[in-house]
Order: sequence, then structure tokens, then C-alpha cells
Amino acid sequence: MTGNAIRIGILGASGYTGAELLRLLLRHPAAEIRLLTAERQAGKDMAEVFPQLAGQGLPRLIKIEEADFSALDMVFCALPHGTTQEVIAALPGDLKVVDLSADFRLADTATYARWYGREHQAPELQKEAVYGLTELAREAVGKARLVANPGCYPTPCQLALVPLIEAGAIEPDQIVIDAKSGVTGAGRGLKEASLYAEVGEGIHAYALAGHRHAPEIEQGLSAAAGRPVTVNFTPHLMPMNRGILETIYVKLAHGGEAGGLREILARRYAEEPFVTLLPEGAAPATRHVRGTNLCQLAVFPDRRPGHAVLVGVEDNLVKGASGQAVQNMNLMTEQPETAGLDQLALFP
Amino acid sequence: MTGNAIRIGILGASGYTGAELLRLLLRHPAAEIRLLTAERQAGKDMAEVFPQLAGQGLPRLIKIEEADFSALDMVFCALPHGTTQEVIAALPGDLKVVDLSADFRLADTATYARWYGREHQAPELQKEAVYGLTELAREAVGKARLVANPGCYPTPCQLALVPLIEAGAIEPDQIVIDAKSGVTGAGRGLKEASLYAEVGEGIHAYALAGHRHAPEIEQGLSAAAGRPVTVNFTPHLMPMNRGILETIYVKLAHGGEAGGLREILARRYAEEPFVTLLPEGAAPATRHVRGTNLCQLAVFPDRRPGHAVLVGVEDNLVKGASGQAVQNMNLMTEQPETAGLDQLALFP
Amino acid sequence: MTGNAIRIGILGASGYTGAELLRLLLRHPAAEIRLLTAERQAGKDMAEVFPQLAGQGLPRLIKIEEADFSALDMVFCALPHGTTQEVIAALPGDLKVVDLSADFRLADTATYARWYGREHQAPELQKEAVYGLTELAREAVGKARLVANPGCYPTPCQLALVPLIEAGAIEPDQIVIDAKSGVTGAGRGLKEASLYAEVGEGIHAYALAGHRHAPEIEQGLSAAAGRPVTVNFTPHLMPMNRGILETIYVKLAHGGEAGGLREILARRYAEEPFVTLLPEGAAPATRHVRGTNLCQLAVFPDRRPGHAVLVGVEDNLVKGASGQAVQNMNLMTEQPETAGLDQLALFP
Amino acid sequence: MTGNAIRIGILGASGYTGAELLRLLLRHPAAEIRLLTAERQAGKDMAEVFPQLAGQGLPRLIKIEEADFSALDMVFCALPHGTTQEVIAALPGDLKVVDLSADFRLADTATYARWYGREHQAPELQKEAVYGLTELAREAVGKARLVANPGCYPTPCQLALVPLIEAGAIEPDQIVIDAKSGVTGAGRGLKEASLYAEVGEGIHAYALAGHRHAPEIEQGLSAAAGRPVTVNFTPHLMPMNRGILETIYVKLAHGGEAGGLREILARRYAEEPFVTLLPEGAAPATRHVRGTNLCQLAVFPDRRPGHAVLVGVEDNLVKGASGQAVQNMNLMTEQPETAGLDQLALFP
Repeated sequence: MTGNAIRIGILGASGYTGAELLRLLLRHPAAEIRLLTAERQAGKDMAEVFPQLAGQGLPRLIKIEEADFSALDMVFCALPHGTTQEVIAALPGDLKVVDLSADFRLADTATYARWYGREHQAPELQKEAVYGLTELAREAVGKARLVANPGCYPTPCQLALVPLIEAGAIEPDQIVIDAKSGVTGAGRGLKEASLYAEVGEGIHAYALAGHRHAPEIEQGLSAAAGRPVTVNFTPHLMPMNRGILETIYVKLAHGGEAGGLREILARRYAEEPFVTLLPEGAAPATRHVRGTNLCQLAVFPDRRPGHAVLVGVEDNLVKGASGQAVQNMNLMTEQPETAGLDQLALFP
Repeated sequence: MTGNAIRIGILGASGYTGAELLRLLLRHPAAEIRLLTAERQAGKDMAEVFPQLAGQGLPRLIKIEEADFSALDMVFCALPHGTTQEVIAALPGDLKVVDLSADFRLADTATYARWYGREHQAPELQKEAVYGLTELAREAVGKARLVANPGCYPTPCQLALVPLIEAGAIEPDQIVIDAKSGVTGAGRGLKEASLYAEVGEGIHAYALAGHRHAPEIEQGLSAAAGRPVTVNFTPHLMPMNRGILETIYVKLAHGGEAGGLREILARRYAEEPFVTLLPEGAAPATRHVRGTNLCQLAVFPDRRPGHAVLVGVEDNLVKGASGQAVQNMNLMTEQPETAGLDQLALFP
Repeated sequence: MTGNAIRIGILGASGYTGAELLRLLLRHPAAEIRLLTAERQAGKDMAEVFPQLAGQGLPRLIKIEEADFSALDMVFCALPHGTTQEVIAALPGDLKVVDLSADFRLADTATYARWYGREHQAPELQKEAVYGLTELAREAVGKARLVANPGCYPTPCQLALVPLIEAGAIEPDQIVIDAKSGVTGAGRGLKEASLYAEVGEGIHAYALAGHRHAPEIEQGLSAAAGRPVTVNFTPHLMPMNRGILETIYVKLAHGGEAGGLREILARRYAEEPFVTLLPEGAAPATRHVRGTNLCQLAVFPDRRPGHAVLVGVEDNLVKGASGQAVQNMNLMTEQPETAGLDQLALFP
Repeated sequence: MTGNAIRIGILGASGYTGAELLRLLLRHPAAEIRLLTAERQAGKDMAEVFPQLAGQGLPRLIKIEEADFSALDMVFCALPHGTTQEVIAALPGDLKVVDLSADFRLADTATYARWYGREHQAPELQKEAVYGLTELAREAVGKARLVANPGCYPTPCQLALVPLIEAGAIEPDQIVIDAKSGVTGAGRGLKEASLYAEVGEGIHAYALAGHRHAPEIEQGLSAAAGRPVTVNFTPHLMPMNRGILETIYVKLAHGGEAGGLREILARRYAEEPFVTLLPEGAAPATRHVRGTNLCQLAVFPDRRPGHAVLVGVEDNLVKGASGQAVQNMNLMTEQPETAGLDQLALFP
């Protein structure tokens, strides 16, 4: 690695998004992993925590308080929600940060407090943070010091809906987002609901009263609509490791047709390397984006006149988390946006 | 088995619904399996086709043309769609029949022809057939000679929606049914889309242009509404053997509330042994009905004012097929409706 | 339920073996559930812990110290290893007990101490306890007050091997037991290794240095051989909820052949309702015993002369745990041995 | 791609090994895909057969008889067993070929005829073919025109056993290979046994009378031993897409110890990029090599004195098929051996 390498630290490297960052960054042409922290696992070799990363010459896991940030260019923060604000606030002010937690995603302090049950501890940083849904905020991300990486669920639906709302092609108040997710979205923490035997051979809806990704989605759609928007967002947990599929039901504005939505999305994403509109009639499948940074979208007519159905898929650990984080890093460090992100899907 | 036993034949016994009928009927207090047919597997012992049924004293598989129907009281028809009409038309006229195919589900001949691409071959029988969604047609089923057993997808959503439409509590034209199904719903036929490696670790929507269960659902909802109703029905295939979960998005009529829907369903199903409304806040999971004849329903508020979310689950091979068929047989033969259907869920 | 009902308590009812006991006992013709304990979940309704058991009229979960044992005939103990000895020692001396933990399985106190790292706290009870591998200890179980229910892994291999060793047909020192298990064998406790994402889409061997079921297996095989026997027992964890398959590699004694082993097992298990020797050439599959109390065995020639391969399958939660426990209860209470255990396999 | 690119054709590109070759070769620094054939799918765009490969600029699928081989440097043959011999015999004599079928793996014509039930149709080519287990035949592969790529099962066990047999450290006649495989090993063909519902939530052993990979394994071990060797090889099918784990039970020669085996393997594979001996006590898991060309090995003591246990894992589609094929291509075309094969495991 040359002197032009990006010197990187990962805070909270022992979870699934941490491991996925490492999978991507270890093959990134300009990344150099210098620092890995993990509170409970501090002192361990990465091979003990993730045997698949043995032999990659990674630094040993340490505690955050042992970290020397002076020799880093960039930090990825993959810590649990709520603990991240203070950590980032204490970092050197010129260090670039991509935060994969939810802590800086909601621009409005009151909304944050309502959904997370506590006052925000770093409101100034919250103002500074750029919400890093890359394709919709490329320029701002390129100039940002602190990027709030979007949640896994909010990524495909915002990519699908924001251009349609901006174009006035759909009714913002008549949106249903029915989401199906694999288990890694819940992280590596020990919860009964994440045990194999509680997930295998079954499916259920959860958080029906309100999932914390709902205000994040609504923030983006409201900005597109120029007024407050409320959506239905209903997540389901299903037996697979990776992948999110969102089936989105919309009402067309002004007597539009599904084909019109297709055209808007086709135009918007024609040049995008990571967002693909499938050919008419083709249905996205999570397995076709497994391990990639792709979000695939499709538009279908609804049998109900005046409505349409959108389908979006992503790998929740890549475009839904670590891959988009690397994409943002690339912009923040003037790398080619696709650097380190050219994986093809692992199918089957 | 006494002289009062119900003497039963199963046509098409080598598929998954055939096996499931046998699982249930072999433990039914009054059932006696006398005849099993399977065209390609004719001549084989059931243990070769389904080893788990070895040692149960079942008759050998024969071809339909070899069958002697004179000594039977009841026939279950688990043949592929399209081939069933002629077979049933050729049966003795006093033989009771529960047909698990789609051939007699649609009362309107023109609708049948449109969705199945051929004229119906037994229109007189189609008129005679009773659509056997048991809880909604108990009396008619009890008097029927030929029952068209409902499709797997149409069962939970009609149980959830028909009472609400009848009560005028929801807008019939604003219904979205987002369905997630295990693989056995596609049967035991050899299709690339049913291979393990095409299903494992993934999810996709299919039949987005229109699934054949859509007109079946609409037939029931239209009858409830007293006018033609069109719904959105979007099925998804996911990696599990059994189970269907339907998330249903509805618009409330007359400024109603989700709680009102709860009350209607609670009243309607209070005495039903196989349809359960879950306590407020509890979310149904397919694993809680695995192997049972139960359909569990729940109602939730939607974040969008004036809307609500319904969730329904069933085991697609039991309440969605063979279990409901046995329930119908019980009514047709004056058995207790729950006979042979008291299994508890196999969890995990 | 009549006055002749068996009044039953289950200690530790919130785990998977507890739930499985309830699934079986709620449909048992003579069982009456009177008492359920669970330390951390005490105070809850069973429907909160296992929603699939809602509406069954079960008593509320309490702590053991709140339990009144005077009105019970039988207790099932499904507590964690190590905590069970004191609990059982404190029970009324005339209460019948089936213990599903490992605490009373090893007759030798020194062996227990070596493998479990502590002195046995109830050595007198350990002497009294009968090891309840039903088919091999039917008479003793029938007279026992305290039965140590066998481990999941030790059940199929002992059923396969004990008759062969007793007949002198195989070399007791040349046995390899390669076992593959679903996840419920690890219980409902929160362990990283039991998370869906750590188990799905993979397989690994574990406890290669020595699993605690090894001495239990060796205890049975040594008794059969009349001298100490050491075996290789290598368990693997694989992505399924239920089921154990054991592939057992043996060396034939005296120039015997695989066919000879078949004959011995055929004779031994000819009349057994729950142990089946498959027809020659048929290979057992866990899915064919799912949800049942069956153990299926098969014998195959080995390509190496003088050797043979045995295959055994069971549902680890039924014949490997709760089903065998009910089978033992039936013997201890003079019920028909098969009462409550006639389920057919849930396939697929 | 420059004039130095390797111009590649893939015969039989519509199966899983074909798709996996494309996943690897599309990211290979020197590969250029020029030709894709698939008999039944001829005329289709690759995106119809494998949507995850859309947009990669691949040629359309054609029939073999339409192929122009003159502009190719290298052909991968991923055709079904039995059909390959004539196809390869008809290719231009200077075209380099890696054959992924079994047709050229067995050097002995009589053995081939016995296991495959027909005479070999290209015995001269069979003599020419080099068996391409790369680490054990690097030099010969480098000079070969026609490489028979090893079977998925024979790869890990030969990598583990050949060095031990060559060193005289184990008894060649006392080897048991208990193999567990994911479903892709059975290919994309339509077989009832490959349906999701026949594989999910279960495991079974198959081909107990003799699997065609047994003579392939024995061929390699016999060469190492310098005399004919017969082994037990017992494969199992389990519910995952990718991965093979082999648990290998061996008898030590001359009073050796497991540690001695470790040393032999450590020495042999110290410099190998794709074969790793895990640290003492660490157990290989298929998920740690998913998507990679790695074979991981480990050695453990057996509780039976004088024996040891080896464990090997691979991704059956990579090191067990397409990855090793690319590795062989690299040697045959004087590319760096690791070119295009540096993927890290996709975990979870």
C-alpha cells in the first residue's frame, strides 16, 4: 500500500457490518486497515472473532479508549445505536467519519428523541451530518466530514420513491412499503428472536406499531414532497442470512400509468453503477444481488386502476450498510465511486 | 374401523397435498383409506413414494382407470388443474367429492376460461360445486356433494376480509394483499423454480401480472360487497417448506378505526375452532400454526390515518389445502367438524 | 379428564423440550398438566412464552419454590444440567420423576465429575436412577421412580449398537459415530453459536476434543460389551430445526457380513412400535421422522471388506428427548407405552 | 482487455458451475469470455438464464455445433457426464481444455466402464488428460492441454490424505470419509431429490452402495500408497446451497499421533495460497470458505488410541469445481496461479 492509501479505523468491528466492511476494504485498491476496536472482544485476534478473516494481516482488536486516531484518515463507526454520539463527538475534528448507526440519520432532534427515547447528545454534529444515500446526495457526501449511512430498510424504498415523488408522479400519502428481511439485519447481538430455531421455517411481521426506520424513510420522502409525509412501513423477518426485498404499493397521480414511473426511474438511474431498473416484466430477487452493492428496482402495473407496484432488492449488509459506507468513503476521499465494489452476486 | 367408517379414495395421492391428506386421515377416528391413485407412480407401494407413510397398511397406488369407486363414500381429488373436470364428471353421481384443484373454484365460466386459457369441460358440475371456505359456507358445505376446496392463498385473506366488507367497515377497492409462501404451495412437480438452490437464501415476488388466485379472492370479496371488486394480490416465494403469511393493507370506511375491525372479527370468529383472532399487539407467525388447521388473524393500526393492517397466517398444506378438505369432509359426512384436526403446532 | 388422570408438573417448561412435552401431553389421553415452572419467565402466561400453546388451558408459569408438589403424580424435569440434582433431591420421595437433563445419566460418580467438572450433589439418587433408553431398559423403567432420560445423540447409536455388541457381531473398539444435528439440540439459551446467521447455509463439527454425550454412549456400549469401550463420537451442527442423523462405521467380528447385522436388529426390534429397521437399500432421512417418536435404522455394506455402515435417525426433540420421556412415563404409570405418541411425520 | 487476454469459451454455461465460472472469469484480470453454449437454452441472452449476470456484456448462448473455436485459447467444458468425451474429441487439437465433467478423471478405462456403465468413447484422450488437483499436480497441469478437473467430493479428502499416505503416517485401508454437501453439487437438472421441499429441514445419506466419486478418490490414494486402496466414502445431502465438509477418520501407522499428521500437512501446505491448515483446536466451517477457492483442513485426536480425525471444507462450486478450474487455467496459460481467485468468504 502506498503513501496515498486511505488509513482506516473501524469502531465496533466484531459485528456483521464490521466483518462486511473488512471483506470489502481488504480488497479495496486504496484502503489500509489500521485500527479495529471491539469493546467486549478487545485483545483478541480478528481470526478468533471471524475465522474467515484469518491470515489477512489485520490489527488486533482494542478498546476505543486505547485507540490512536492521529494516524487515520477515515473512521467507520459500526457501534450500537445510542452509544455512537459521544464516541464521534470525542474524535479529532478533522477525521472523516462514516457512521453506520442510526444516531445521525434523523436531522430533526425532536423526531430523534421521540423514536429513540432520549435527547440527542451531539446536536451540533447532527446538524453537520450528511445523510449518505449516495445516489440522492452525491455532491453533499463528497464534501462531508461526517456521513450518516442510511439504514438497510430505508435504502431501496427511498431510491425507488424519491424520484417519483419529486416528479409528482405518485401520491405521497398513499404509500405502503412491505419489507422482507434476512436475519443479519438484526445484528450479531444475543436475542431470542435471532436464534436459528426461532427464525428457521417461518416468517412473521414485527414492529407493526412503528419501526425506527419509518421516520428515516419519511424524512426522505417528506423532503422530496416538500411537506410532511406519513407512510406505512411493515417489516418482516424471514429465514435467510442476507437480503431485503421491498414491495411498494403506490397510487398514481394525475391519471398516470406504471409505465410512466418506469420512465422516471430509467432516466434517473441510467448512469448509476449500483442502481438498476430491471427490464419490463422481470422481477427482482434478493439472490441476484447477494454480496453486491446493487439495488435492483422494477415497476409493475397494479390490477387496481390508478395504482402501481414497485419492487426493490438489496443485500442489507452491502448496499444496505457496509457497501454503501465504502461507496460514501470513496466519494469523501476522491476515489472512484465504484472502487472495491465490483463484486458479482454469489448465486446460488 | 367399524361399519360406520367413511370409505375414502384419494385421486392423485403422490403429491404433497395427497401425503398431507394421508397424514391427517390415518389418524382420523372415522376415516378408512380404501383407494389411492397416481398416474406415473401406479403400481408402487406408498412407502416408495412417501417413506414416512410406510407400515400404515395403505393400499397400493393404482391408475384411475383401474379404480373401483363403488365401495367408496368419499373421494378427495388432488389432481393437477385442468385434468380434474373430466375425472370428476366421470365419477358415480352419488359419490361425495372434495376437489383440491382449482377446477371448480370459479363459479363464472367466462372467468375460468380467461384465467385458465380453456373452456370449462364440466360447466354443470361447476354450477353444482360449493366453494368450501368452511367458516364462510358451513351450511352449504354440509349439504354439498361436490366441494371446491379453496386455494391456499385465498383462505386467510377471505377469512380476514369478507366479514369486514360485509360489515361495510373497509373500502373494497383499496385492498392490497401481500402474500409470502413456503415452497410446498408449488407442489411436487419438477420445475427449476422449485429447486432448493433457486429458493434457498432468497425471496422474490412472482406472478406480478396476475396470479390465478386473484380472481378466486375477488369472487369472494365481490360477493361480500355485492358488486365487482378488484384487489392487489402479490405473492412471494420464500425459503421454507410450509406456511403462508398475508399482510393485508386496507382503507377504513366512514372514519372507522382498526379497533373496529378487531371487534367485527372477534365477534365473527369467537366460536370458531380453527380461526383465531390474536390478542391486541400480538403478531401472527407461520411457525405457530405449522402442521395445524388453524388460521390466525390480527389487526393493527396503520401509521397512515384511516387505514389498517391485517395479518393472517396458515399452514398452506393444512388449512390451505388438505386440512380444510378434511374439515369439509367432516361436515359432508356428519362427523364432528374438528375430527382428526386437533394437532398442535410443531414448533420449532 | 377422569380421576385416573396422571397429574403432571413440568419443571423448566419454557425451553424447547418443555414445549415439546406440552405438545405431546396436551394430546395424551391420560395426562393432566397441573404445574409449570420457569425461573426467569415466572408469572407469565404460557401464551407469552410459546404463542402456539395459547388457548390450551395451561396453568401460569411459576417459580419452583412456589410449587405445590403434593397434588402431582409425575414430574418432568427439563432444567439445565447441574441445577437439577438439588431440585430433584428436594422433591417428595414418592413423586415419580423423568429427568431430561444429563444429571443422572452417568451411573459412575467419578465419570460424572470428570466430564461435568463438579462433584455430584445427589449420589444416592444417582444410584437409584434408571437410565431410560426405553427399548433397552423397559422392565427397569416400569419399576423406576426416577428415570434419567437419555441424551439426544446417545439414543439412535445405542439402539443400533447395543444389540450388535451383545451378539458379538462387531468390534466394540472400532466404532465411529458421525452425528449431524439440527439446532434445537442446543436449547433455547442465548449463545452466539445458535444465532440464525451463524448456522444458516453452513455446517461444522464441534466438541471434537470430547462431547459430554461420549461417556454416556460408552457407558451403554461398555455394559453391552462387558468391558470398557471407547468410541469416536463426532457431532456436527447443521441448519435445520429438528433431527439427528448418525452414520456409524463398524468393524465386523468373526468374518461377519452386513446382512448379519441386519438380522440381529430385525429380530431385536421386530415388535417395537418406535424402532424400525428399514428395508434393505433404503436410507433413513430425518424428515421422515420429524415430529414422531420413531428411531429408524438401516444397515449397509461398507466398500472396505469386513466393515459395515449403520444409519440411524430420530427427531431430537421427540425420541431424543420429550417423546422418549412420555414413553417412559407411560411405562411408569401403567399406560399403554404408545399412548400420546402416534403422530405421523410432518413432511415436508 | 488487451491482445494478451485469454480468449475463453464455456460449453454448458447454463448450469451452476457455468455460472460460477462466469462469476470468477468476469473479474479475472486476463480472461475474455468469447463463447457460451447451452443446448436447450441456445438463443437466449445470459440474463434470461442467470439474471445476476445481466449487463456484463456476455455473448448470447448458442449450440455447440454453431461454435467457432478458431478464435479461442481455452475452453471450459461444463457438460453432463457421458456427453463430454465426443465433444472434446471433436475440438481443435491445440485448444486448451479444462473439463469439469467426470469423463476424463479416471485414468483406467475398465474402472470408467464399470462405474459409468459404458465404454469410454475417447480412450486416447483419457490417457492424455491430466488429473487437475492443482496442489498435487501443479507441474503436470502447467504442461497439460487437457485437464480433468477433480470432482467436488474428491478434492478436500485427497488434499488431506495424499500427503499422509505418502509419508506412511496412516493406514490406507482404514479410511472413512463422511461427507456432507450442499445442494448445488447435484447441479441444476430437474430431479425430485433436488426440490426445496425434499431437502429443506432434513438430512440423509445417499449412494451408500457406492458413489462415483469413490473410485476417483481411490485412484488418488492408491497412487499415493503405491498399491490399490479401498475407502469408505459416504456422502450426505443437507439443506444449504454451497459447501462440502468432510470428516475423515484414519488409523495412525507405527504408533503415530495426531500431532504428527498436523506436522506433515503443515509442511506440505505452508506455501499454498488455497490450502490452509487451521490452528490446533480450530474446527473448519463451510461458511468460512463460502465463495472462495480455499480448502481448509484440521487435524484432531480421536478418543480411540491410535486414530485421528481430519476435517476438510471447501465451497463445492469454487475449489470443488469452477475455482479450481480457473486455478488450472492460470497454470496452463502462465498466469499467476491466484489470478481472479482472491475473494474473501461471504459470511454470513
